Amino acid sequence: MLPREFELIARHFAPLAGQGSLGLADDAAILAPPAGRDLVLTADATVEGVHFLASDPPDTVARKLLRVNLSDLAAMGATPLGYLLTVSVPRDTMPGWFALFAQGLAQDQEEFGLHLLGGDTTSTPGPKSLTATLIGHVAPGQALRREGARPGDGLWVTGTIGDAALGLQVLQGKREDPTGFLASRYRVPQPRLGLGLHGIASACMDISDGLLQDSMHLCRASNCALTVDFAAIPLSAAARAANDPAAILSGGDDYELLLSVPQANEPAFLAAAANVPVTRIGRFAHGKPDVTLANPPGAPFQANLSGWSHF
Amino acid sequence: MLPREFELIARHFAPLAGQGSLGLADDAAILAPPAGRDLVLTADATVEGVHFLASDPPDTVARKLLRVNLSDLAAMGATPLGYLLTVSVPRDTMPGWFALFAQGLAQDQEEFGLHLLGGDTTSTPGPKSLTATLIGHVAPGQALRREGARPGDGLWVTGTIGDAALGLQVLQGKREDPTGFLASRYRVPQPRLGLGLHGIASACMDISDGLLQDSMHLCRASNCALTVDFAAIPLSAAARAANDPAAILSGGDDYELLLSVPQANEPAFLAAAANVPVTRIGRFAHGKPDVTLANPPGAPFQANLSGWSHF
Repeated sequence: MLPREFELIARHFAPLAGQGSLGLADDAAILAPPAGRDLVLTADATVEGVHFLASDPPDTVARKLLRVNLSDLAAMGATPLGYLLTVSVPRDTMPGWFALFAQGLAQDQEEFGLHLLGGDTTSTPGPKSLTATLIGHVAPGQALRREGARPGDGLWVTGTIGDAALGLQVLQGKREDPTGFLASRYRVPQPRLGLGLHGIASACMDISDGLLQDSMHLCRASNCALTVDFAAIPLSAAARAANDPAAILSGGDDYELLLSVPQANEPAFLAAAANVPVTRIGRFAHGKPDVTLANPPGAPFQANLSGWSHF
Repeated sequence: MLPREFELIARHFAPLAGQGSLGLADDAAILAPPAGRDLVLTADATVEGVHFLASDPPDTVARKLLRVNLSDLAAMGATPLGYLLTVSVPRDTMPGWFALFAQGLAQDQEEFGLHLLGGDTTSTPGPKSLTATLIGHVAPGQALRREGARPGDGLWVTGTIGDAALGLQVLQGKREDPTGFLASRYRVPQPRLGLGLHGIASACMDISDGLLQDSMHLCRASNCALTVDFAAIPLSAAARAANDPAAILSGGDDYELLLSVPQANEPAFLAAAANVPVTRIGRFAHGKPDVTLANPPGAPFQANLSGWSHF
């Protein structure tokens, strides 16, 4: 009889394993890299009580874990391939939790065309602690970077901003959410993969720590100044009703793309992004790396560049 | 000014970052895979209080994290290349902890020829939770696997067995260790990289969950029976003095290699392993996957196949 740890792996995770995983039964996975491609690698940790709530359904916890990493691949213009997973959970975690968690992984594997390559399952005396390392690929030299924004380029975002931060407030009982839209934006972000922006966007990253803080990262990497027009930031109807500038500007967890696009490339950009809402919210300029907020919100919000910091 | 999270990364982790890491300043790393090689990928999680002790020095915590993963690469016959790291620690973790942790990473990067590619630093309300994803490479088709043992093959181990489990007892105050040897074996395992055993060993894995349990994994993967000679298991002087059969057979954390070697390949095996102590401790046979213990220890030990299971 297998020790229970290996039973859990065989039952819940082995069915998710694909080519190169060796059925999760060996010491490591073997991956023949796609010919003529560079690999793109990213790892994110999510901790219960920090990145997700104990009350979040296990399937959305799994999907968010994959999606925050997929969003990093999207920011680099990479195509996802596979992932490694570490799961550290309390000893008394029920088999039903593993079943639902694996169901969420399976759902997003199908949606994004990736498979499980390997990982580790351990106990912890603390909160659930989950990590994924995502592996994608890109044509050599065609990865999008943060450093390419130039004065005159527009600053664009995909989707709408602030929903996830408001969704967290909803799940903490601080806000109403009759349709469940805000909570779903917190629990299941939408990675913006496959836009094909090499040669069109001059810089790109995803928004995880708040729009202003991440905009400042683009400024630093590209050595440009930037003006962000608060009035131009795209909001969902629910976010507009919430009227919470701090959530929009510093809330984080958006996992939308933040891009710089040279004016000459705007037609190509709008064509490439035909299936995703995109909005120009600012413009880069000569100057020291710094973000100026145009049309700032009124008194309740103290405009600053701080977003989420773990420490 | 950078938020403190990014200051910590810039100060302690950016100096460890190598080619493809983009200075840890982008969303993901870019890796041009070595031409004509397969990649070997493994991820392990280590949790304070489970895999290491709160009293362990941060530099050995870092080195053990890398080494348990390097041991998986060694078991596949792979050459290490780089790694991604996730660090989830309490908000009040002191800068000195990060400095020593990074120092341990730097030391083993130098020793094993690898560099940091990327990762994530987050807070946790629980114990420190650290993961590494190691990336290595191997000639296509030349990875060692668990499934190749055949009846008649010898079972071999590198190094000595049981030291780490005894070292944990020492660090828990249950045992004396005048020289510090046992504690050092728990804190800093020795991955057995670079032996060049393709075409020589017929199967290989590393011992992490206990000699008997891991021997049973080899039996299952190779569909063979196996006899392990308890009297032949190589012991350090300290382990011999400790006289603790359970630590030797089921203790785990050895991170020595467990190999099957066809008799005809023994001269080549001994030549390849000239710089590492190796000992034959058993032999595979026709039969259902099962481990028989020859010359078992006396009454105090109930021989069984159980080793470490997290659940």
